[in-house]
Amino acid sequence: MNDQHDAGETYNYGLSGDIWFTEHQSRDVDFSYKVRVLAEEQSPFQHIVFMDNPSFGRMFSINGFMQVTEADEFVYHDMIVHPALAVNPDIRRVLIIGGGDGGTARETLRYRQLERIDMVEIDEAVVRMSKQYLPVTACAFDDARLNLIIGDGLAHVQNSPDNSYDLILVDSTDPVGPGEGLFTFDFYRHCYRILGERGILINQQESAFYPGDFREMQRAQQKIKATFPIAMLYSFNMPSYGSGSWFFGFASKRLHPLNDHQPERWEQFGLDTRYYNRDIHRAAFALPNYLRRKLEQE
Amino acid sequence: MNDQHDAGETYNYGLSGDIWFTEHQSRDVDFSYKVRVLAEEQSPFQHIVFMDNPSFGRMFSINGFMQVTEADEFVYHDMIVHPALAVNPDIRRVLIIGGGDGGTARETLRYRQLERIDMVEIDEAVVRMSKQYLPVTACAFDDARLNLIIGDGLAHVQNSPDNSYDLILVDSTDPVGPGEGLFTFDFYRHCYRILGERGILINQQESAFYPGDFREMQRAQQKIKATFPIAMLYSFNMPSYGSGSWFFGFASKRLHPLNDHQPERWEQFGLDTRYYNRDIHRAAFALPNYLRRKLEQE
Repeated sequence: MNDQHDAGETYNYGLSGDIWFTEHQSRDVDFSYKVRVLAEEQSPFQHIVFMDNPSFGRMFSINGFMQVTEADEFVYHDMIVHPALAVNPDIRRVLIIGGGDGGTARETLRYRQLERIDMVEIDEAVVRMSKQYLPVTACAFDDARLNLIIGDGLAHVQNSPDNSYDLILVDSTDPVGPGEGLFTFDFYRHCYRILGERGILINQQESAFYPGDFREMQRAQQKIKATFPIAMLYSFNMPSYGSGSWFFGFASKRLHPLNDHQPERWEQFGLDTRYYNRDIHRAAFALPNYLRRKLEQE
Repeated sequence: MNDQHDAGETYNYGLSGDIWFTEHQSRDVDFSYKVRVLAEEQSPFQHIVFMDNPSFGRMFSINGFMQVTEADEFVYHDMIVHPALAVNPDIRRVLIIGGGDGGTARETLRYRQLERIDMVEIDEAVVRMSKQYLPVTACAFDDARLNLIIGDGLAHVQNSPDNSYDLILVDSTDPVGPGEGLFTFDFYRHCYRILGERGILINQQESAFYPGDFREMQRAQQKIKATFPIAMLYSFNMPSYGSGSWFFGFASKRLHPLNDHQPERWEQFGLDTRYYNRDIHRAAFALPNYLRRKLEQE
């Protein structure tokens, strides 16, 4: 959802006084929620709105695009964190970039063996407002193992020494605005450099259905493929995201997400997950023919 | 999308004279397309509207719910037809119930070895209007191997002799209105009776995200499980359907969709498909934990 020309939210006031929040999925397709607006803030980086909707629960948008909803956040946060840990269960050092709502940190902190968890979020307003309005994701900020840095993710990776992390999770907005630097060659090259030999990079990779989204997926994927020997996409069902199908990228120096998948090791962690399981892990990497072909046409 | 209270389309006329078609996915969530309306008809069974939208192309709704769009019909029609043929490549006799747009017949007719293809559609208006407005799906009605019957699907299975078919594809609307009889115990029992020993039943099984949809999925699944020894669900990504994730049911007397999967045999058919492939076949049957648990609570 990042064709800049299509972006931007609309509020409609119904006859009965209802307020509807509308996300423009394309110029001619709208997704609308009947909402109660709880808080709205223009931070130095972006426009943030927290709302309630009966079907999706508590939720918030940034610059008109839905980021997190109570009803389906568990899908996104399961899928950004757990697949990497099922490929390399020996991960000890994690860097989270973005993810100010706290959901990615929450899932990461469930792994007791982790020794270092740095999180770099550019916008303190997202963290502050999530703590106030979205406890379902912002429940782990007090954990002493989490080192929260309010700052720029690109600068952080540029300034990190070689071999600093085993896993980098890029929980970013779309490649427009403050998230833009996280979709550059420079960013991916530094990620490669600061990862260990068994390191894995997971990043938010948009979706394939709307042409504007797909262009962004393709651009990012080209750069990652030019940087990492292994670079694949995996999908999951997000009802609140355009088309309902969203993707993360899995990139690594030598671990393959299917050939090196260790479901037994992962299951020994004993984590109760609402979306992720060993079958979902493998299934997520199966791409339909039309997408395989579109990606090959790069 | 079958909570009757939520059903019904809305047309909004924008300030610039634009017309927007809105599907109510729940009482408080709307999905809207900017449209040009091509034809509208109240048949004896249902309200049918054919429209154009820039993102989704030519499309039509029945009673306010989007049925088929040019942009994603290939997903639905690949997934209703090909998985069964990859489990039993020796299928010769097929019954299609519903599917008046012609897309299921089109995909079925690609199998040269089929000896008998009966299609029972209750509403001639869907066939007639699809022929006029939706050639992408209604392109195979002239094929001499297709026996099109305008009539009631439930009556057809009641009146068919034992062991009449190897495959039954139920390409129905939701269990409200004319599709209702296709979600009954009586219907499933007759399907079982008229299928051969290696017979397979595939049916439209709603989705899991919105509670109203899930209740219908669960009700149908309970009845099918009580009738067929093997009954499973499989999913696919439909951007034009609520939540983006939709399901078919796979039921059979003895063939298992994964254990009896014959990808090599299927690939010998040499069919070029835009969505389906051997990896998608296996992936489609992987269910997230929350859905497994909800289905177990039956």
